[in-house]
Amino acid sequence: MRIRILWPGKTHNRDIENLQQFYLERINQMEKCELIQTKTAKGISEKFAQRIMDIEAADLEKHFKNDYIICLFDEGKEMNSFEFARFLKSIPSSSARAITFIVGGFLGLEERILKRADALLSLSQMTFSHELIRIMLLEQIYRSLMIIQGRQYVK
Amino acid sequence: MRIRILWPGKTHNRDIENLQQFYLERINQMEKCELIQTKTAKGISEKFAQRIMDIEAADLEKHFKNDYIICLFDEGKEMNSFEFARFLKSIPSSSARAITFIVGGFLGLEERILKRADALLSLSQMTFSHELIRIMLLEQIYRSLMIIQGRQYVK
Repeated sequence: MRIRILWPGKTHNRDIENLQQFYLERINQMEKCELIQTKTAKGISEKFAQRIMDIEAADLEKHFKNDYIICLFDEGKEMNSFEFARFLKSIPSSSARAITFIVGGFLGLEERILKRADALLSLSQMTFSHELIRIMLLEQIYRSLMIIQGRQYVK
Repeated sequence: MRIRILWPGKTHNRDIENLQQFYLERINQMEKCELIQTKTAKGISEKFAQRIMDIEAADLEKHFKNDYIICLFDEGKEMNSFEFARFLKSIPSSSARAITFIVGGFLGLEERILKRADALLSLSQMTFSHELIRIMLLEQIYRSLMIIQGRQYVK
């Protein structure tokens, strides 16, 4: 399995950044997983939300080619951790075609990125900050790999 | 509104502990919120899960009296953040009767604590580590108070 994770911009909260590294290291002990923090639109007022999302989408698009794309989206499909593990295992991936997760910035993802996705996933009915959701996704990828490999993971 | 949060044992992960403080401080700027880390069962093998949960339940019970109790439980009710804010706002609370959230330890909550609860809440269909779920709950309480007060909260 080859996993890639894309999101616009670096994580600003230091503690969340540390947790990000913590889970990325653990995931990489099991499967190759690369995090790419793509470009954000700088110096544009939040009033121009569409323009910001456009700019972010353009840089995201440079990074995924023909990958199998899973976008985090609040109206996406909800699964429990076992269903998510089964789903992940069922996706054919290769060194040429990664499974790529895309997480939106603080404004969410532009329409055309959502349309391009092979799957839309929701981690919760609740809304979480776009930095906290990064950790939730990483923890869930880690957990699902542990489930796939039949290993015990302390709750 | 008076909020109390109970869970057995201190948070071991330093970054999660920092985030916990971060959200607790912000919540306390809006409503009184107290975190009580109750006793854990020490030196007992995980084979004796029921005994561990019994010991943890006994100490949890010392702390909630006639409070309105919301237990986090994977088969509990799911809500989106706005529904959660509306729900929280609808609970009558006073200095004598707090709204008390209870989060289980790594084995979950003992049956009698769940039976005593006034509401069972699930943050996600997915399973998260019992330390990560602490942050998710705090972030959601913070977000719901911002919603109740009609304030903007950066996504």
